Amino acid sequence: MAEIRDVVEQYVKLVGTGPTEDIVALYAPDAVVEDPIGTEPRRGHDAIREFYDVLADLERETELRPDSVRIAGRHAAFMFVLVTKFGDQRLTISPIDAMEFDDDGRITSMKAYWGQDDIVSETA
Amino acid sequence: MAEIRDVVEQYVKLVGTGPTEDIVALYAPDAVVEDPIGTEPRRGHDAIREFYDVLADLERETELRPDSVRIAGRHAAFMFVLVTKFGDQRLTISPIDAMEFDDDGRITSMKAYWGQDDIVSETA
Repeated sequence: MAEIRDVVEQYVKLVGTGPTEDIVALYAPDAVVEDPIGTEPRRGHDAIREFYDVLADLERETELRPDSVRIAGRHAAFMFVLVTKFGDQRLTISPIDAMEFDDDGRITSMKAYWGQDDIVSETA
Repeated sequence: MAEIRDVVEQYVKLVGTGPTEDIVALYAPDAVVEDPIGTEPRRGHDAIREFYDVLADLERETELRPDSVRIAGRHAAFMFVLVTKFGDQRLTISPIDAMEFDDDGRITSMKAYWGQDDIVSETA
């Protein structure tokens, strides 16, 4: 339980600060990422690296929503906010992520729940 | 999108007030409920009815957490609070539910994320 919560906190922190390789290392080698859920799943470290690499060059920050982490055995769900900035453009996205973990606390599955309604685009 | 949000709102409302049969009617006939996620899935209206019938005789209320509903295509995730009362005992449970829907907006899958940490028991 405590371990899974730690991984969730690390995950959100790393999505905000990177490097990509540290995010990828939280995943099991054959893990599957579906972000948003319903889109083509990305399977394995290479596909997952490609996904998070999009963030690598962006100015960004994340915040785990306080009291949102729900843990049930090897499963967790939580809300967080990701803000990315390019130039004077500021994009805020606030998903609910659902994760499954293996015995070693590595993420085996991540499914992100968000739609257009959960994205806010602002110009400074 | 709007339809799925309506079903989510109806679901949370009915879990707090509804006759069991109205909750069951929100589900597709072969739907699967896993509550909490990781436990034996309950498949079909009969098994689902049995599950919600436990609530039928309890004094209870629910609240959908404002701004928690995330919708991605046929999928939704959201936080809500269920308070049950028996005698001077008050039990609060606050899960994140993840749902999938069919073309008619009926729930085909519900997985609830909560653990012991998400239950608060109080005596009045």
